Amino acid sequence: MSGIARDLIALGVLHETETVQGQGRPSILLDLHPEGAFFVGISLLEDPAPLVLSDFNGNILARQTMPLSRDPGVIAGLIADALPKLLSGRKDAKRKLYGLGVALSGFVDERQANCVQSTLLGWQDVPLAQIISQKCGIDTFIENDAKAVAVSEKLFGSARDVQNFSVVSFDDGIGCAHFIGGKLYRGNHGGAGEIAHCTIEPGGSPCRCGKRGCLDTVASLKAIREMAKAEGLSCHSIEDLETEAARGNAAAVRVLHRAGNALGLAIAHLIQFNDPGMILIAHVEGRFDGLFGTVMRQTAEANVLPRYAGQTPIRTHRVDRDVWARGAASIAAHNFLIGPTPN
Amino acid sequence: MSGIARDLIALGVLHETETVQGQGRPSILLDLHPEGAFFVGISLLEDPAPLVLSDFNGNILARQTMPLSRDPGVIAGLIADALPKLLSGRKDAKRKLYGLGVALSGFVDERQANCVQSTLLGWQDVPLAQIISQKCGIDTFIENDAKAVAVSEKLFGSARDVQNFSVVSFDDGIGCAHFIGGKLYRGNHGGAGEIAHCTIEPGGSPCRCGKRGCLDTVASLKAIREMAKAEGLSCHSIEDLETEAARGNAAAVRVLHRAGNALGLAIAHLIQFNDPGMILIAHVEGRFDGLFGTVMRQTAEANVLPRYAGQTPIRTHRVDRDVWARGAASIAAHNFLIGPTPN
Repeated sequence: MSGIARDLIALGVLHETETVQGQGRPSILLDLHPEGAFFVGISLLEDPAPLVLSDFNGNILARQTMPLSRDPGVIAGLIADALPKLLSGRKDAKRKLYGLGVALSGFVDERQANCVQSTLLGWQDVPLAQIISQKCGIDTFIENDAKAVAVSEKLFGSARDVQNFSVVSFDDGIGCAHFIGGKLYRGNHGGAGEIAHCTIEPGGSPCRCGKRGCLDTVASLKAIREMAKAEGLSCHSIEDLETEAARGNAAAVRVLHRAGNALGLAIAHLIQFNDPGMILIAHVEGRFDGLFGTVMRQTAEANVLPRYAGQTPIRTHRVDRDVWARGAASIAAHNFLIGPTPN
Repeated sequence: MSGIARDLIALGVLHETETVQGQGRPSILLDLHPEGAFFVGISLLEDPAPLVLSDFNGNILARQTMPLSRDPGVIAGLIADALPKLLSGRKDAKRKLYGLGVALSGFVDERQANCVQSTLLGWQDVPLAQIISQKCGIDTFIENDAKAVAVSEKLFGSARDVQNFSVVSFDDGIGCAHFIGGKLYRGNHGGAGEIAHCTIEPGGSPCRCGKRGCLDTVASLKAIREMAKAEGLSCHSIEDLETEAARGNAAAVRVLHRAGNALGLAIAHLIQFNDPGMILIAHVEGRFDGLFGTVMRQTAEANVLPRYAGQTPIRTHRVDRDVWARGAASIAAHNFLIGPTPN
């Protein structure tokens, strides 16, 4: 047994399950104590910002919120204020708290320490991890929202045994992150997975990024709501649009077709370019069991090499609003377990 | 020094260059003898099929050709017949021949042994490596053409120090392969990099794969020649089209625009999806310094997030016809050096 394993057993993080006799020295199987270590995850994607306490299995044991701020110092102070209450329900949580993770919209460096750029937060090169860890005295790591969800799916979710997969997060915006060879792939500027700004309708609608026809302008929840409004529909959700479409409302059919087609084409590109073992669409809102999902799947199948059609599982997975905070906690757990995830 | 290093020094493959004194044991820097090992590379992409003898630096020391066959047993026999002449110019080549590589159009398994499918050769599950090694008595590995070129660029070429890059091979067809985290990334079915059949003009021209609007139908050399013919032009190459376009021939301008735009859009998708550190376009024919290349670059820049525009080097690299055979030799060298490249 290595020294590290012995240390982790002494800490109560690992425990021995069985001894396997084979050739040479017997092997000892080790497992993680779910409650051997705790992590805090915070999402800066909404206001109020949720903070969760997670165990080693990704279970959420406690939940708090705090106001969202764009000031890194204020954020650190708000976290320090919220922590005692978050940890108060578990008497061993403070002693076994081994890390804090933050999920945000934007680009993060490979040390998971510096926010290179965030349009939503108005940041450029903000060393948020250091600011928080200095204020709170806890090892802190930050990560892009979609990448945090991908790490969470790899550590705790349905991608546990998949080496190559992509997660698409579907919400007001669209995010994406790739695991390749069992590791999070960041890309050269942290931009791997930025499918939201892939041109899917050349010459299409103007996007806030400065281009036209980005996937984000036609397939995000926000875009779908706006297309519905432009069609004169009073639908505020995919659920409403699906109901209208099922009733034969041609405008609702048009909107769902256009959005599903765009998302399906982007997923087809993902399959053609990277041949992942699985695509996991994590959606907080919306439905994939109606017209929107049908068009998305049909378009994805029709736009990959015929011999690949149907070969790549496209799973849709309804997640709760804590998906980002849970993802953030998984970044802290991942760093505690096996160090940071740069390529 | 490890046992393996000692063995390789004894074989004359490695040699010591200098001793570095630091803390603990002194380190010994090792370098490869360029002529410490030789490899044979064969391309099954053209008729006659070229065979090359390569040293450890990817230099081609000898060249032969043999007729192309679609019969694996016949291919093995033809290689066995051609080898003595290929090796005859170097007295130590036979003794130091450590591997044979084959590049082909199609899908290859991760052991680089079995051709899963090749439309060009009409194959399905052909264990070509074993058939050749049994006939010739040399360790044999096979690989998809674009992936072989990517390995060659990583081992011997301009991508030596780049961890994440994509190679686009531009010829009658279009190939692509990714290195991610310093390793060739095959994808889940060996299909990573199949950008040729990415839908780039939805509802566009019919493709031999069964779909419509594939990149291959509008941006490959073959497609460009056919578009020129359909425009009534008597141009048989990009060079001719560039000359016509420079003279103001609107039809030639249209063809080069359409092709350059399609290739540029696919490269933009590659950047948005994977954020590689470099894109290397290896082209046997064609020119990228005229209208075609200008449109390709402009479209690539205009269809990535504005903050990424110009951040990803797109290098074009004119290669000779031996690019595939040299790539094949690099697959053998790579296996000899560090084992196969599965993810």
